[in-house]
Amino acid sequence: MQRPSLSALAAPLAAALVADAVRLRLGIDRVAGATIVDAGIAHPGGLEAGRRIAELCMGGLGRVTLQADAQAERWPFLVAMHSADPVLACLGSQYAGWSLSHQDDAGSFFALGSGPGRAMARKETLFDELGYGDTGDHAVLVLESGTVPPAPLVERIAGDCGVAAERLTLVLTPTESLAGTVQIVARCLEVAMHKVHALGFPLDRVVDGIGSAPLPPPGKGFVAAMGRTNDAILFGGIVQLFVAGPEDAAADLAHRLPSTGSRDYGRPFAEVFAAVNKDFYAIDPLLFAPARVVVTALDTGRSFHGGQLAPAMLDRSFGG
Amino acid sequence: MQRPSLSALAAPLAAALVADAVRLRLGIDRVAGATIVDAGIAHPGGLEAGRRIAELCMGGLGRVTLQADAQAERWPFLVAMHSADPVLACLGSQYAGWSLSHQDDAGSFFALGSGPGRAMARKETLFDELGYGDTGDHAVLVLESGTVPPAPLVERIAGDCGVAAERLTLVLTPTESLAGTVQIVARCLEVAMHKVHALGFPLDRVVDGIGSAPLPPPGKGFVAAMGRTNDAILFGGIVQLFVAGPEDAAADLAHRLPSTGSRDYGRPFAEVFAAVNKDFYAIDPLLFAPARVVVTALDTGRSFHGGQLAPAMLDRSFGG
Amino acid sequence: MQRPSLSALAAPLAAALVADAVRLRLGIDRVAGATIVDAGIAHPGGLEAGRRIAELCMGGLGRVTLQADAQAERWPFLVAMHSADPVLACLGSQYAGWSLSHQDDAGSFFALGSGPGRAMARKETLFDELGYGDTGDHAVLVLESGTVPPAPLVERIAGDCGVAAERLTLVLTPTESLAGTVQIVARCLEVAMHKVHALGFPLDRVVDGIGSAPLPPPGKGFVAAMGRTNDAILFGGIVQLFVAGPEDAAADLAHRLPSTGSRDYGRPFAEVFAAVNKDFYAIDPLLFAPARVVVTALDTGRSFHGGQLAPAMLDRSFGG
Repeated sequence: MQRPSLSALAAPLAAALVADAVRLRLGIDRVAGATIVDAGIAHPGGLEAGRRIAELCMGGLGRVTLQADAQAERWPFLVAMHSADPVLACLGSQYAGWSLSHQDDAGSFFALGSGPGRAMARKETLFDELGYGDTGDHAVLVLESGTVPPAPLVERIAGDCGVAAERLTLVLTPTESLAGTVQIVARCLEVAMHKVHALGFPLDRVVDGIGSAPLPPPGKGFVAAMGRTNDAILFGGIVQLFVAGPEDAAADLAHRLPSTGSRDYGRPFAEVFAAVNKDFYAIDPLLFAPARVVVTALDTGRSFHGGQLAPAMLDRSFGG
Repeated sequence: MQRPSLSALAAPLAAALVADAVRLRLGIDRVAGATIVDAGIAHPGGLEAGRRIAELCMGGLGRVTLQADAQAERWPFLVAMHSADPVLACLGSQYAGWSLSHQDDAGSFFALGSGPGRAMARKETLFDELGYGDTGDHAVLVLESGTVPPAPLVERIAGDCGVAAERLTLVLTPTESLAGTVQIVARCLEVAMHKVHALGFPLDRVVDGIGSAPLPPPGKGFVAAMGRTNDAILFGGIVQLFVAGPEDAAADLAHRLPSTGSRDYGRPFAEVFAAVNKDFYAIDPLLFAPARVVVTALDTGRSFHGGQLAPAMLDRSFGG
Repeated sequence: MQRPSLSALAAPLAAALVADAVRLRLGIDRVAGATIVDAGIAHPGGLEAGRRIAELCMGGLGRVTLQADAQAERWPFLVAMHSADPVLACLGSQYAGWSLSHQDDAGSFFALGSGPGRAMARKETLFDELGYGDTGDHAVLVLESGTVPPAPLVERIAGDCGVAAERLTLVLTPTESLAGTVQIVARCLEVAMHKVHALGFPLDRVVDGIGSAPLPPPGKGFVAAMGRTNDAILFGGIVQLFVAGPEDAAADLAHRLPSTGSRDYGRPFAEVFAAVNKDFYAIDPLLFAPARVVVTALDTGRSFHGGQLAPAMLDRSFGG
């Protein structure tokens, strides 16, 4: 099967984001020649900027919409997403899997990189499993970061992607920002896809997917903000997957996929994080999943349901 | 009133569908010179492909969206649609009214053709009633089919549309496919318009309309798949129509329009179909309608409600 | 902070509206050289025309969608809206703040002008508060009017906007029309922003917003139509605002912002209007607000809720 170049699909979206910077209230700077899009550090950005960054982050294969929502009574809006190809859009692009760090006398920087540039750099073994790599004229990454990456790191990223720094665009969305909130919650389908993979379900059997999660109010401070965006998915996220293969594997996936089965399920994410002394890697990785899933076995037509929404937990998490 | 050329509006959408074939996971083939878009036979296609095909099938006059849905508890997503001109978009284009068949030594082929090419061929008396015909450089049809039409039929279709085969695009969406599921359920408003017509309500009085129906999981096998897409509309479809003319005619329409009044209402469509020994024409044609309607009489401002949703029937039909 | 030219953003949307006039069932006329778009007087227009006019009226900064809605049980569709910059989109453009009147021997004309042309004319003191003015090659205004403005007024409007009449587009959407209904209800966020301003809350603290309101059936006659579009917002509108500044100011805003606190709250708007003998200015200006609000204080992350939906009032107002 022929597969698209994510970077080619994303390039016009990145160019449009930069061209629309003023109307989207984004800042445009240059570091080491690369274009830095500030979507919530010194510039306000906003919900619509986040929506567009989310579609960019899915390598141009995703559709992300903001909707009114009757489901979570106190939180009246949601983020919905689907994709022309969820494995490629979510795991090949949107997943924040590229660890980007730099340390020198000036200080240290760390962020997780997501977006179509990952498949150009292929720093993650995941790409071997996906059997996917990409080349192109222009690389784009989204960094959930409140600080600008230092020039040496920017140069290294460009080099890893195989482009000149002038052909690299880095979009910075702090977790606490409105754009960050939208683009993180827009990962609800990606979070499901990632757990599908972690559970050992073959990715080539996932034919399609669609998801939604409530729009949380941005939290104040990194931990609160991260907590709420996670909780939007863990307690309010819904994903339907359409999978090939045997029915019992679909049933098993529906049973195991939701957040509800994790040993760490049951309290807002910020509390979980505090309880492990902010050691992210001490948290059960299987916690990261939508609250509720439907898995449809295409080979038999049967659907399996797992998990449930927990609106009371949203109220506890969302601060009001 | 000047009316648009549906084929002119649809041509760029068809060209974009072909240009985006790789990212939408569609196959592109040639039969007798015509472009064949495979949206679920040998290529997976998907939900987004179906959404775009649905907009194409409405002659470029429709907007089709996938949304999260709080209404049908176990089926969390829906397809919503409206149109700039429902009579033309739904009956002049989207309705699967053109019977396409061919038989020779190699076998037989049958499909119902929908889409903007119908108005170029004008094989249906409906176009006399609509007072609409179309010509153009390029013809597009959507066929709910799991097999590729034979070359002689393709040539005949092109001839009937008045174009060279090289200027004909046929989009194939099997009923069981994801793209097929979306593009069929996106007919909820069209199904209402068709029954409006069958009930003898004057089409020129239907000024506008909007609809939605739950996204069913694709059924396995033609009958199950057809059953579920029908049931999504019959038991979960909602349509609001805005009509001119006397209020009592609007009230009467609201009363008669929903599926609920049909003698065959009350069990999943696949069971109805089995009960008539798969003789489609033995089924009450008035069964094909949304579950619930609102008809607004624009001349007086009053609205009339008819039918109701039947979520339990969706659960019975949707296989889980 | 650099701010966009609303008229530059709106110009391509206005050109597209005119180019798509046939498919959107709009009339295009010329008065004194200016382009007059008839979206519901002698031409039917429709829901989709209204949606596009609403986005145009937000100066190209808004996204307006029609959605299925599970919230207001008898009224199954809604209008949702957000914006890249709510202060500029809603108050700088969408607010109907420019009083346009003309009287001569041929009769009198009155309408309130909204849209991006307002910031070119700057006839309202509001623009001093916004610190915003605009110039450009082309001016666009939306008039909630069922009659065509007379040539002398058209010329004056062009002059006030600083463009030749040939470079002015006026979009006419009668209150009773489908397009008018959509574009008025799409003002739910603007209505909230206007009350935010009336309450003395600093506009520069409103960072973002998102809203929705049920789609009312158009009322027959101006008063009924105006009543229903108002009631859709007053009894069914929901807005979430994201504000900077002290938390207690956000709490106070959430308390004071909804329609529910107004002395005139409690019956359909048409009845309120009749009770003051159609003296619009005798109505409590604080009535004009969404039914329910969430105000999120970005500086602390807390959210405050005010008001509530009143579906029974929608039923009383919406005529069925």
